[in-house]
Amino acid sequence: MPELRKDPIIGRWVIISTERGKRPSHFGLGEKQVTSKACPFCPGNESATPREIMAFRPDGSEANKPGWSLRVVPNKYPALIIEGNLDREPKGIYDRMNGIGAHEVFIETPSHEHDLVDLPHQKIKDVLWAYRERYLDLQRDPRFKYILLFKNHGEAAGASVEHSHSQLIATPIIPKRVAEELTGAKKYFDYKERCIFCDIIRQEITDQERIVCENDSLIAFAPYASRFPFETWLMPKTHVCHYVDMDADMHDELATILKEVLSRLKTGLANPAFNYILHTAPVGNEYRDFYHWHIEIIPKLTKVAGFEWGTGFYINPTRPEDAARFLKELTLSERTVSV
Amino acid sequence: MPELRKDPIIGRWVIISTERGKRPSHFGLGEKQVTSKACPFCPGNESATPREIMAFRPDGSEANKPGWSLRVVPNKYPALIIEGNLDREPKGIYDRMNGIGAHEVFIETPSHEHDLVDLPHQKIKDVLWAYRERYLDLQRDPRFKYILLFKNHGEAAGASVEHSHSQLIATPIIPKRVAEELTGAKKYFDYKERCIFCDIIRQEITDQERIVCENDSLIAFAPYASRFPFETWLMPKTHVCHYVDMDADMHDELATILKEVLSRLKTGLANPAFNYILHTAPVGNEYRDFYHWHIEIIPKLTKVAGFEWGTGFYINPTRPEDAARFLKELTLSERTVSV
Repeated sequence: MPELRKDPIIGRWVIISTERGKRPSHFGLGEKQVTSKACPFCPGNESATPREIMAFRPDGSEANKPGWSLRVVPNKYPALIIEGNLDREPKGIYDRMNGIGAHEVFIETPSHEHDLVDLPHQKIKDVLWAYRERYLDLQRDPRFKYILLFKNHGEAAGASVEHSHSQLIATPIIPKRVAEELTGAKKYFDYKERCIFCDIIRQEITDQERIVCENDSLIAFAPYASRFPFETWLMPKTHVCHYVDMDADMHDELATILKEVLSRLKTGLANPAFNYILHTAPVGNEYRDFYHWHIEIIPKLTKVAGFEWGTGFYINPTRPEDAARFLKELTLSERTVSV
Repeated sequence: MPELRKDPIIGRWVIISTERGKRPSHFGLGEKQVTSKACPFCPGNESATPREIMAFRPDGSEANKPGWSLRVVPNKYPALIIEGNLDREPKGIYDRMNGIGAHEVFIETPSHEHDLVDLPHQKIKDVLWAYRERYLDLQRDPRFKYILLFKNHGEAAGASVEHSHSQLIATPIIPKRVAEELTGAKKYFDYKERCIFCDIIRQEITDQERIVCENDSLIAFAPYASRFPFETWLMPKTHVCHYVDMDADMHDELATILKEVLSRLKTGLANPAFNYILHTAPVGNEYRDFYHWHIEIIPKLTKVAGFEWGTGFYINPTRPEDAARFLKELTLSERTVSV
């Protein structure tokens, strides 16, 4: 059973999950990604993962057999596990609870050779739709206070399997980073009676110098206080609090802009390792006025070092204005592959 | 001029410093450490660094010439620069100020081949004493609200020069991470009327299962909510708020325990990349009752991935109790070298 332990000084929770230490990419031995035939995410190897939670099977094939175009399975080495009670308790002056939660993997394509960015528009839409489906299902479980959706691409970004995938972790507490964002956005709303994210979009459209690309529904830009070189945020232009509440047009245009931004990063920076994280409000109506969902993409081009760990600040060697201009002015070749 | 920019949502400051992009370890081109003859930190290459701020020169040799045993110089690619005014100002809805601060490098030994851990006791004491001297000097500058001392060892930990060194950055604001620690420790003190760090030491001595080693003045342990495998904290057993206030005995025993812990990490984990960060209170008397200086050592064995970026939580695959037992039970060979 994984365990949640709280840092008594700053109140940060840590997941102690020894199961994770058993992954193929065991630390200290040099991380090596599993490739091709041995890949647990490739068609034909369905039995190498836990049984599927959902799948898109255009050919009507049987569950846990080939024929799928997208597959969602429980993580074989879960950081948190779904069965059990939280059992909050003290340990001397410390606090702990059981590591209850959900940890799922979205296998985005049957093809081992293609990344999310290479997929045709409709397949990217499918991935984004699958995120929504899993949110809607998991948010009915009252033990889960937050559902985090993210993608690790490349070893430097923490991916231990090469085959293109994203992950979901449902946590029994609202994460520190999410709480900070909610508190900051609430404070701004209380003072200005406006959504801070909507104001950021207005400022970016006025300034023009940090925009990477945009369409009717969404804008992609390098944030003013980017932590990392080429950090890029995707944000709906209209105020939408929860990811699951976006309409059909926005869903369609999100697939378009996500593909474009990932293509620009891949082409311009030679397929960098990156993480993207879907920021959406916790379940509930109380965040509706002041929170605004968005996606943060962070390429891994620099190392986080002592200064960052000690301060919580970041040193970024690339001006966001320069990063945005570089990405915007790139000429893209057509990279879509039919998979 | 580097620039400090504030994230409008969560209030985190970021240093935009294009000078840093010019370092030899330019990102995207694969970080390569400079070795041997071309090393700017080796004796004979003193002119490759800015002029020295201080040096220990047992042979009474001339400044900026060989003969030193320890040398402190301004960073050639500073994240923050020492000359100028802060000039806080708005940029539309955003906030910025000039990147004023200090960024210094401690070249810990003339030997290119030896790490801090390899040095004899007295040389480690010298390094720790040099930290203190630079603190005492810089804390007289009213523009600096915090002075951070840290060491990056190995490429994975962000070191761009192989030659053993540590760094100091003085910032014009109290960093977010430090502020969180101060707030948490203050809250605990207000409620309990005791220092939380002193209570942590009591708990660790009671539990015994996370202690790596100790001497009369200090204790080294794996924190209960360790973020990373083999994370180790060094803490004075008696209540001392500021690093610069430690007495001669503690200074001596700090060199001993630091060398022992770094030796155990190096031997047990095959010379891992690591960061250590000196946590001490900002200048001033108001922190005296509730803050307690310490050193946090974080080996770089795992990658920070999407989950960590999205939540501010960490997933640690190694129980701190197991990490501490492993480090404690190692047999150490004698590694001291006379340099």
